Amino acid sequence: MDVPALVDHHCHSVVAADLADDALAGLLTESDRPPAPGTSPFDSALGLAVRRWCPPALGLPVHAPAADYLARRRELGAAEATRRLLAAAALDTCLVDTGLTAAAGRPLLPLTEFAEAAGARVREVVRLESVAEAVPATAGDWPRAVREALAGAAAGAVAVKSVLAYRHGLAVPPERPATAAVVAAAGAWLRSGHGRLTDPVLLHHLLWTAVDVCAELGLPLQLHTGFGDPDLTLHLADPSLLTGFVRAAEPSVVPLVLLHGYPYHRQAAWLAQAFPTVYTDLGLTASYTGPRVAEVLGEMLELAPFGKLLFSTDAYGLPELYLVGSAQFRHGIGELLTRWRAVGACSEADAERVVRLVAADNARRLYAL
Amino acid sequence: MDVPALVDHHCHSVVAADLADDALAGLLTESDRPPAPGTSPFDSALGLAVRRWCPPALGLPVHAPAADYLARRRELGAAEATRRLLAAAALDTCLVDTGLTAAAGRPLLPLTEFAEAAGARVREVVRLESVAEAVPATAGDWPRAVREALAGAAAGAVAVKSVLAYRHGLAVPPERPATAAVVAAAGAWLRSGHGRLTDPVLLHHLLWTAVDVCAELGLPLQLHTGFGDPDLTLHLADPSLLTGFVRAAEPSVVPLVLLHGYPYHRQAAWLAQAFPTVYTDLGLTASYTGPRVAEVLGEMLELAPFGKLLFSTDAYGLPELYLVGSAQFRHGIGELLTRWRAVGACSEADAERVVRLVAADNARRLYAL
Amino acid sequence: MDVPALVDHHCHSVVAADLADDALAGLLTESDRPPAPGTSPFDSALGLAVRRWCPPALGLPVHAPAADYLARRRELGAAEATRRLLAAAALDTCLVDTGLTAAAGRPLLPLTEFAEAAGARVREVVRLESVAEAVPATAGDWPRAVREALAGAAAGAVAVKSVLAYRHGLAVPPERPATAAVVAAAGAWLRSGHGRLTDPVLLHHLLWTAVDVCAELGLPLQLHTGFGDPDLTLHLADPSLLTGFVRAAEPSVVPLVLLHGYPYHRQAAWLAQAFPTVYTDLGLTASYTGPRVAEVLGEMLELAPFGKLLFSTDAYGLPELYLVGSAQFRHGIGELLTRWRAVGACSEADAERVVRLVAADNARRLYAL
Repeated sequence: MDVPALVDHHCHSVVAADLADDALAGLLTESDRPPAPGTSPFDSALGLAVRRWCPPALGLPVHAPAADYLARRRELGAAEATRRLLAAAALDTCLVDTGLTAAAGRPLLPLTEFAEAAGARVREVVRLESVAEAVPATAGDWPRAVREALAGAAAGAVAVKSVLAYRHGLAVPPERPATAAVVAAAGAWLRSGHGRLTDPVLLHHLLWTAVDVCAELGLPLQLHTGFGDPDLTLHLADPSLLTGFVRAAEPSVVPLVLLHGYPYHRQAAWLAQAFPTVYTDLGLTASYTGPRVAEVLGEMLELAPFGKLLFSTDAYGLPELYLVGSAQFRHGIGELLTRWRAVGACSEADAERVVRLVAADNARRLYAL
Repeated sequence: MDVPALVDHHCHSVVAADLADDALAGLLTESDRPPAPGTSPFDSALGLAVRRWCPPALGLPVHAPAADYLARRRELGAAEATRRLLAAAALDTCLVDTGLTAAAGRPLLPLTEFAEAAGARVREVVRLESVAEAVPATAGDWPRAVREALAGAAAGAVAVKSVLAYRHGLAVPPERPATAAVVAAAGAWLRSGHGRLTDPVLLHHLLWTAVDVCAELGLPLQLHTGFGDPDLTLHLADPSLLTGFVRAAEPSVVPLVLLHGYPYHRQAAWLAQAFPTVYTDLGLTASYTGPRVAEVLGEMLELAPFGKLLFSTDAYGLPELYLVGSAQFRHGIGELLTRWRAVGACSEADAERVVRLVAADNARRLYAL
Repeated sequence: MDVPALVDHHCHSVVAADLADDALAGLLTESDRPPAPGTSPFDSALGLAVRRWCPPALGLPVHAPAADYLARRRELGAAEATRRLLAAAALDTCLVDTGLTAAAGRPLLPLTEFAEAAGARVREVVRLESVAEAVPATAGDWPRAVREALAGAAAGAVAVKSVLAYRHGLAVPPERPATAAVVAAAGAWLRSGHGRLTDPVLLHHLLWTAVDVCAELGLPLQLHTGFGDPDLTLHLADPSLLTGFVRAAEPSVVPLVLLHGYPYHRQAAWLAQAFPTVYTDLGLTASYTGPRVAEVLGEMLELAPFGKLLFSTDAYGLPELYLVGSAQFRHGIGELLTRWRAVGACSEADAERVVRLVAADNARRLYAL
């Protein structure tokens, strides 16, 4: 099945530098810890996917052993490997979350250089909490200053992204927090040294600031949901916990894009069906589930309206993850819809329409690309 | 695989009137909101299932485009389309929840007319909260009056149904609420104008009233669990939240039928295995998951005893949903068991027995039909 | 696909005596209640698996009806049937939880006799709560006495196992409880008659005692998670609830082995990926899901590192459950990996490596066998 040009509506930039083997392997897992004794991140569904899709781009056979792959990558050098892998990913447009600026201790390429390396159009997604942490302000002025800073940062962007799931979890009260409570919490946070924002009142206030700014600028708000690194507690990242907030934010008509969602992707899909403002995402699930991508994609499409699921790679740091994300999606949706066709569940035209919507058209419509 | 005559143990009646295209499409989603810009409810797993199973009943080819289907339906008129679609559903017996009386603003057919249109035996399922809302009483008399009203309403019915999941969620304390608390809550509710019942104490009391009445009349109690319209909060509809109540109600031996369950159908299946009083249901899951029905049915049958899963359509408003529910089940269970046979997981006789149990025999035994 | 010698890292012993048909059937379900009217435990995914794998070991055809199977088993006698079934299971090594000593009211074989009957190497897993319940002590001395008793019991064992999920659920605070609170709770428990331990403070204290003892002896700690018998409340057995404890216990580097997990096995798999100390298990899921084993195993391998998933049968009481657990795993992983090979997701060598790791190598490394 032909898959059209892909719009990757959620990703990060890549490391340009050469990486030690361990550092590279460390980007093939959501863990930020060293692997358990006797285990390797390559021994995983994602590891299989990397060894399936990437070796041919570097001139090796499919399923080349990890050691061979790493040796060949070193031989080519990071710049050439990156060029080849990103070219093979064949992405048309990338919406890049600029909230992370390094991976494995190395800087990520700035957007213009990344665009050139990827041969793709690139647009920015502004990370809410990063913007807020950088705002100089007194407590009383904090709400206004944060809103202005976000509006400024988002002016040239295509979306705002929240990582509330990592900082507190998604169980927030539906109503906006009172200004007095926000100012008090801001005071405590500023006095404590203005570090990583984890105060629930401030995080909750930021969410509503994002709704206001997105409403003003006509932008969607992306929210991390589901699995990620060990910072988060999985059951607190269940998107269903956002339901009260989703209802409260409905009058703003700001689109809320639930990223990843796995293993609560069926919950995310229901929210996307029940609420016109909610959209859902494939994200890193497609890469991390490796040989199982068609099944997981199938689970998402049980309840998610076909006009509301969006492809993304959520690639971060390694150019391999762009190629893997792109190949996994092309392959997975092809396998799934070929099966649907084979049992008579839809027509050829229907299958092609589903692919077009998820691959690019939904993103183009949602982000006005 | 031959599927025997179906007993649909949970459904609603149909709209007899002609519907505008938007109103009809609006019944193909659990959302009660207009679709998001640029999207259509036909672009969904359920939409594919409608276009797979219904066009032939109206003389069109399988997978006819939505526009063609809607045009043909208008040409035939609602009465003729309804007659053809219900006939194609070929249901033997329908247990109809009479708590809803309209869909898309139009009245549903009364039971006798529905029975005639469907060519099926029809029995009534009484909706607990609707009965309670219609009872005229003072606060002190409310518990007695509600119980009498329910006993009266259920006398000719085959089951009572609770929509606690929509009103409060399923997290209820196991013990019966104290009478004084019920009377106080009834007083507050009556003074506030006797509207939609959402008070947790009253809802909880109703659940126990239903247990008492069902025990007296020998009827099962159906409970909505899992996904539904945006009124509910999904994680609060997880049937596992009912475990304490299930244990507390065990001595009554009233069968508790967990409807739908998705995406918590594996939890519902475990409850059905662990507790003799618990049964579980296919419900609207079969229709809404479209091409994925065999997989979801497979998930249910991992832990659900084959003697405790029941077929239903949960069809509501549109005659299409009867045909889709019926065809999805026939096709889905056929596909699943053919696969089980092919890999040697069961014998032909075993497969036929599973189909018979789920299609009709479990319902006949449970509801004493 | 060739499956190597199996290490069953979590199981129980078998009943040696002849069992009445009802008692035998009662061990084919997690329920400890009589089956619902008109239903039989043989009508289940597990029932199909028993009738698929066991009849040939007793000289009957595959899928022999339950009645024929039971008759033949009686004819052979329990001793001969047990010998044949355990031999067919072909287990190399069994790590046996000795916390249960009876099934269906009959004693389980002692370890040495079980080892002989199974023709397998057998090592002990000590059950934490059982050890603690048997310790004679005053309240003030209880913490020390329990720790000593556990250290003594675990000295010759390969692991400690916790059934916290059954006693309280997995929602425990991350920090160790204060000693004063433990002594007070121990006093109350001792005064109340020293029965089944269900006090949350004592259970929580036991968990940390196990961490200390396991750290000292270099043993892993197994934790029941996910489905089991009606004693537990399913959503309180979600392993994600342990995340705070997992983080707090990380410095001890004690491996935490999440048993079963289903239907939260994807959550368990994420924990195994995110935290180096966490491992996950196939367990009774493979037997109970019958024809669906390959799919469920696939779900586990979406996020679980291949070096962190372990085969087990969790067989208990019936020798049938050893053979079923073993055959289901061999068949299920074969079916899954054959499919992965067929679509090009991995090489033949990769598939063989995954099988070897899950079947035995992970267990040998983890338990230092």
